[in-house]
Amino acid sequence: MTLDGLVESALPRALEELGRLVAVPSVAAKGEDMEPCAGLVADLLRAHGLEAHLAATDGGPPVVFAEDRSAGPDAPTVLFYNHYDVQPAEPYHLWDSPPFTLDIRDNIAYGRGTSDDKGHIVCRLMALDALRAANGGRLPVNVKFLIEGEEEISSVHLPAWMEANANILNADVCVWEFGGVDDQGHPQIICGLRGIAYFELHARTIAYDAHSGVGGSLFPNAAWRLVWALATLKDENERILLPGHYDTVKPATDDDMALLAALPSEEEWLKREFGIGQFLGGATGVEYQRRAVFEPTCTICGLDSGWQGEGAKTVLPARASAKLDFRLVPDQDPETVRQSLRAHLDAHGFTDIEVRYLGGQRPGRVDPHHPMVSLCAETAREVYGKEPALIPLVGGSGPIHPFVAGLRQPVVTCGVGYPGSRAHAPNENLRLSDLLLGAKHTARFLGALSEGPPAPSQATFAQ
Amino acid sequence: MTLDGLVESALPRALEELGRLVAVPSVAAKGEDMEPCAGLVADLLRAHGLEAHLAATDGGPPVVFAEDRSAGPDAPTVLFYNHYDVQPAEPYHLWDSPPFTLDIRDNIAYGRGTSDDKGHIVCRLMALDALRAANGGRLPVNVKFLIEGEEEISSVHLPAWMEANANILNADVCVWEFGGVDDQGHPQIICGLRGIAYFELHARTIAYDAHSGVGGSLFPNAAWRLVWALATLKDENERILLPGHYDTVKPATDDDMALLAALPSEEEWLKREFGIGQFLGGATGVEYQRRAVFEPTCTICGLDSGWQGEGAKTVLPARASAKLDFRLVPDQDPETVRQSLRAHLDAHGFTDIEVRYLGGQRPGRVDPHHPMVSLCAETAREVYGKEPALIPLVGGSGPIHPFVAGLRQPVVTCGVGYPGSRAHAPNENLRLSDLLLGAKHTARFLGALSEGPPAPSQATFAQ
Repeated sequence: MTLDGLVESALPRALEELGRLVAVPSVAAKGEDMEPCAGLVADLLRAHGLEAHLAATDGGPPVVFAEDRSAGPDAPTVLFYNHYDVQPAEPYHLWDSPPFTLDIRDNIAYGRGTSDDKGHIVCRLMALDALRAANGGRLPVNVKFLIEGEEEISSVHLPAWMEANANILNADVCVWEFGGVDDQGHPQIICGLRGIAYFELHARTIAYDAHSGVGGSLFPNAAWRLVWALATLKDENERILLPGHYDTVKPATDDDMALLAALPSEEEWLKREFGIGQFLGGATGVEYQRRAVFEPTCTICGLDSGWQGEGAKTVLPARASAKLDFRLVPDQDPETVRQSLRAHLDAHGFTDIEVRYLGGQRPGRVDPHHPMVSLCAETAREVYGKEPALIPLVGGSGPIHPFVAGLRQPVVTCGVGYPGSRAHAPNENLRLSDLLLGAKHTARFLGALSEGPPAPSQATFAQ
Repeated sequence: MTLDGLVESALPRALEELGRLVAVPSVAAKGEDMEPCAGLVADLLRAHGLEAHLAATDGGPPVVFAEDRSAGPDAPTVLFYNHYDVQPAEPYHLWDSPPFTLDIRDNIAYGRGTSDDKGHIVCRLMALDALRAANGGRLPVNVKFLIEGEEEISSVHLPAWMEANANILNADVCVWEFGGVDDQGHPQIICGLRGIAYFELHARTIAYDAHSGVGGSLFPNAAWRLVWALATLKDENERILLPGHYDTVKPATDDDMALLAALPSEEEWLKREFGIGQFLGGATGVEYQRRAVFEPTCTICGLDSGWQGEGAKTVLPARASAKLDFRLVPDQDPETVRQSLRAHLDAHGFTDIEVRYLGGQRPGRVDPHHPMVSLCAETAREVYGKEPALIPLVGGSGPIHPFVAGLRQPVVTCGVGYPGSRAHAPNENLRLSDLLLGAKHTARFLGALSEGPPAPSQATFAQ
């Protein structure tokens, strides 16, 4: 049987395992069911022939570490980075099927984590099974898994764990936790992630909620304090007003702009999907591509104060809070944002606004012309039958910095996502066709790698 | 037995009846249990010898109308205005006992509505029972009750119902639904209420919540749109920025200022109770008194958007909403505010912000030197043994305009509240001593009225 055929025959078991993973609501933001999910992941890895164990982190859920080094010291080593935690599923009523029950309709698997990131875990296992079967029962490369439980909350404890365990993490290449196709089916090879700094702002003004008729003229209102403070952070042209916020921003290079110009555009798809007439700033074409990833952002992720039920409640809120997410581009640093946010609020008279730092990550990039990236693109072209899209930087974040800067590993992407995955939203889903393609790509990349280190490549990419 | 003794003997039955009223969660904002509560109120009125019926309103819960006209056409008539609806009880976890179960601890009755306004309903019934018993089984004045079910949501349907039923509402004086003592035990005679205009603002930008890493640079964020729009409505000095908002404001007159200056101050009590170092604008003394009631306000009562749970969720909200309460002073009008709010948002580029008008009321005042007001004050002095505080205007709102301007009735206050009542907040409560005093005052005011129309008075008030 061909490698592709072997991957296809691994599908039924993969879906059964994906169902077991989705059924564990390992929502990192709530911190529940993390150990059981880590245990299940380790069990699955063992069932697929790897040595696996749970490794404690200093304060977070355990990391699952696994390896199969039977290919021997002369064979290359691949490190798979994945995560077993998921985003919260709320609001539940917007799901068409229960979020923590795998539901397959019209060859699409629905459920929280089907795409981000439990679907990627089973994708890797399908690839390894196929490679083993094609290779006389033995993997042709050494593989390691690092599967953490805090990716959705900024991988708070991962960098320290990685630094302490760098000796077991050495590898020739890291296969990242996501990947997939764009809206036209081109496989995406992703060479960088933005960083992030996530905060809660809290206003507390009075001992308890007051009657608005009594306090309206006299008592400081927590909701107003919060609104006024937030309004100083970003203007209506999306310019972030923290002092020095753009000082370390590296603009896109000519090479970046050429890569962006060569990308298939998701503009029309995104506008249709989200019902948007035009993007912020009227961005379109290569400026849309640039703005999507090379601009720092400041996103209010949530607001919470006072009465939110039906109808009128005449209350003056004692408390108000906001969730705030800054996406960072090279070479911004979350610690700098943390300090400048506090200094900015103080300078504007908002010393009463409490800032809680929930976590952050530094941005990181891989050279788009690294031979490992080229090998990943070449094998993608073979599997997908379409030109891969080489993407210099994506809008999302992840703990890429300790891999590229700490372990000094190139990072490549083979994945099962697509623009309609609804990661982080209701009705998250995984097309089974994408699962098969992602597993075939993973298997083929490892197979190609086993044939020797890739030579510098002149491969062309999607036009 | 004295009239006061008769009131005291009515207490056990009053508490039993208050318990039955509190047990019905007639939250107007939710629109549940309104008819059952109206029915219970009518039953109680009948059990106390009145003819009572439920009268349909055009779209709202029923009004309870009751009367006892056995005093005859030559006796004066009193109209009691009350309401059987209550504020929502959320957040439940801040209550020390279940909000819809009357719980009496240390001679204080706790529960939603104990003060606002179910406690006032039983206060009236105690007074009527005592008067009847003191008067050979017959009331010495004619009484009417108008008890509505939408006071907490701006009495949406009351003015139209009153206009259509003005022929049955005639009376010499209206006893208002609230009243009570200040923090030093002085009875309060209240001669005016601010108006109100209550709105929801809604921002909706995209079809569904997006991943903040994908959309942060490109998609309009509903929470940001709302924050920016709100920030244009009021500045950090509490100045409301709607065009023309202060044009019809009648400043406090010299007589108002003299009355305010004569009031006992709740300044220190409020600061202690709410944990406030200083009031907005640093107001103190007579300026504190003036600012508390003669300034228009704009209060954010609630904010709701995106992720509000624990921890970090990197989501770009598709929707955001705010609850907004404007308190109006004479001669502001809610309809004008409604129009200027829309015009203001449009002028600032916020045509995308939807404004929903949940209801409004016009402000209204009674001449503080009206003979009925003086009679109310005189009887209060007798009952409380302290100088009454004559208050030209209070911060709260209510449907006073159709009484004073529509029915042309003077309005007086006899009540059971105190500054720690926590009306609208968790642990709403009623001190049993206040219930007795309020009922004695009500009884004595009606008794005095039955002795003939009051003469113009030169009564002095609290210094």
